Amino acid sequence: MLTLLTRVRIHPRSTFTRQAFRVFSNASPVSPLPFRFTMPTSKPQPESNSKVLILGAGNFGSCLAEHLGDSDHRVFLWSREAKVVEHFNLHHKNTKYLTEHNFSKNITAVGPDLPDGDFINEMDVLLFAIPTQFLRENLTILNRSLHKTNLPLLIFVNKGIEIGTDALTLEIIADTCGAEVAKAATFISGPSFAKEIVRRRPTSVSVASFTEAEANKTSDLFHQPHFRCYTGSDPIGIELSGALKNVYAIAAGMSDGLGYENNTRATVIITRGLAEMTCIGTAYGASPLTFLGLAGVGDLFLTCSSSSSRNYTVGYRLGQGEPLQKIIATLGSVAEGVSTTKGVKRIIDKLGVNAPIAERVYEVLYNDKATLTAVRELMDLPPSRELDLPPTAGGPAKQLMEKLGYPV
Amino acid sequence: MLTLLTRVRIHPRSTFTRQAFRVFSNASPVSPLPFRFTMPTSKPQPESNSKVLILGAGNFGSCLAEHLGDSDHRVFLWSREAKVVEHFNLHHKNTKYLTEHNFSKNITAVGPDLPDGDFINEMDVLLFAIPTQFLRENLTILNRSLHKTNLPLLIFVNKGIEIGTDALTLEIIADTCGAEVAKAATFISGPSFAKEIVRRRPTSVSVASFTEAEANKTSDLFHQPHFRCYTGSDPIGIELSGALKNVYAIAAGMSDGLGYENNTRATVIITRGLAEMTCIGTAYGASPLTFLGLAGVGDLFLTCSSSSSRNYTVGYRLGQGEPLQKIIATLGSVAEGVSTTKGVKRIIDKLGVNAPIAERVYEVLYNDKATLTAVRELMDLPPSRELDLPPTAGGPAKQLMEKLGYPV
Repeated sequence: MLTLLTRVRIHPRSTFTRQAFRVFSNASPVSPLPFRFTMPTSKPQPESNSKVLILGAGNFGSCLAEHLGDSDHRVFLWSREAKVVEHFNLHHKNTKYLTEHNFSKNITAVGPDLPDGDFINEMDVLLFAIPTQFLRENLTILNRSLHKTNLPLLIFVNKGIEIGTDALTLEIIADTCGAEVAKAATFISGPSFAKEIVRRRPTSVSVASFTEAEANKTSDLFHQPHFRCYTGSDPIGIELSGALKNVYAIAAGMSDGLGYENNTRATVIITRGLAEMTCIGTAYGASPLTFLGLAGVGDLFLTCSSSSSRNYTVGYRLGQGEPLQKIIATLGSVAEGVSTTKGVKRIIDKLGVNAPIAERVYEVLYNDKATLTAVRELMDLPPSRELDLPPTAGGPAKQLMEKLGYPV
Repeated sequence: MLTLLTRVRIHPRSTFTRQAFRVFSNASPVSPLPFRFTMPTSKPQPESNSKVLILGAGNFGSCLAEHLGDSDHRVFLWSREAKVVEHFNLHHKNTKYLTEHNFSKNITAVGPDLPDGDFINEMDVLLFAIPTQFLRENLTILNRSLHKTNLPLLIFVNKGIEIGTDALTLEIIADTCGAEVAKAATFISGPSFAKEIVRRRPTSVSVASFTEAEANKTSDLFHQPHFRCYTGSDPIGIELSGALKNVYAIAAGMSDGLGYENNTRATVIITRGLAEMTCIGTAYGASPLTFLGLAGVGDLFLTCSSSSSRNYTVGYRLGQGEPLQKIIATLGSVAEGVSTTKGVKRIIDKLGVNAPIAERVYEVLYNDKATLTAVRELMDLPPSRELDLPPTAGGPAKQLMEKLGYPV
């Protein structure tokens, strides 16, 4: 019934959106954050056929490699496993992820060592698809090879908070490579199952950066009719969305595992979870509107309604009464939400934000609270206003911006 | 595994939320609209056992009657069908909706004539659960019986835009009963399947009014651990959410009917649909934050992911290639989104808002555009910023507020 969507090269950037609105009276009381910078930080990108190094040959790194290879870019996919590299280059198959898929001939696997400085400097684009927990060590090594006056386009797709420091990726980049590199960083996030992307099923993502030109470059690189990119200026909100939604996916799984139904998941968990995410994000210093977007509600929606989400599965099995240790031991892969919940709990406490769902996920994971008790407690909370945003522009974001050399 | 949640009577209203946030710096750049009025307009409500007349014995009216009867209120359920009234009072069963359910003995069916003035003035609460299209004629009759200085608590749960006038319910109330009655009106909306509510499955709803005391009264009447109420001050946004989400439910159904998968529904339709709803609402004069709530994203989420939603079903069958006339003829009940789409199209044109998904739903329904062509066109739109809110505080809301006697 469906034929594959064709791919295209030229994407005139939309400029009519704002002009299309008639101006009635005053400015809206709410508007998205403006970009902090507009001029490019990274080197000019070629008209076509960019050279892209993707660091990390996991599920998401592999599917993005395929998307870019399929768009005729020259892609190098780094894996730290020699066997994966060898097999990929012989058969154009990934032995561990998307194993059925025949990958584009435009992709070459490299590794297991990190590519050297000459190789890095040949690249137009570096895309980081490695877990947040391994980012600091890899960036520390790569930093030695980066020419700061001739940076490649830098794209990050990892999600989560660094264990031990509770740092966002922006802060890890600033710590390891300096503020100028963090300023140039772009982030891709949104509801995107890898197995659907490699089959060119229509997908949309948020692309965020402090620098407008960098966000646009990333959008131009990735945008296809079947992979739509929407640019934004709130990378802190995008990062927080990506981390927080895994906590609420665990909660949604718990609700379903306990046998609650549609109303409960849609309201008690997802919508109230979204309100909590928005409050935490606003207190942190992000824009509440970011949580209305693809990386916020879009990804939350997908993650909370799919049994193939690892975090949802952890919650579901907890709801069914299995102990956490057994679930983790048999899950076969990492559920980032479990460790993220610990960092989120510290952030909530520090900000003094009221986040009853996240608090209870923490209690279930780390203090042996029964899932049914946790849900009952949520039901028993007193009535309140629907969205009571904290009256603050955020402490952590302010500190982070100061670290990046942009005091607010 | 699940035991029924117990019900309670006393609900201390939460006051700690705001104080719990530490104040870091300046006020947040975004906050929900304040209530326009705080003092009550309607008569004082009894401490317990309110007398409630529910107008409309359809699916939602019946389930709310059951919820209030189950909370020991004295409920009268009006149906315009004598047979329904007679059968209900004999067997405590509704012959047409929730037919398996044994209704509370606290409910008495009344009708088929509208109750007279004496009866109306005995009531503490009037709840309107009749379709928007029949509201004007019924309010015109009821208005003669309303004592304006001793109003009952007025609650509206209908969704949609009036055909012919494109009026919201607030405007219909002002036209028929005057501005003071519209000022007192409260609205309940949110993701709530009737069949789950009557089984006390945990559900949450938004309760909105221009007047804080009225919203709180409605919350106090309905709130139970298994039926959580969240108050808000943006009835225009709540009404628009309830109408608009049916248009996007049709779009989500089309996407699924065409064979598209999770990424597409979560991103292209639901998240981008939410962004469109927010833009339309903001241009109209509602708060964008309302669309982040239960009546916005919560209800959209439920409606777009359920095959038991009539609007979703219309879209699904269109996506599978059935002609609209055949679908309408065999659906067995009204899909409000089909007529709402026509009103929404006029509103979009009037506001000059960019709403490509709603435009295409309109084209498919009324101009014979093929569903696949419509989805392809959405994919082929140029890249853009993620949320480009219109820079306006809204024309229609301004006009409506003037009609209510509260110029902005």
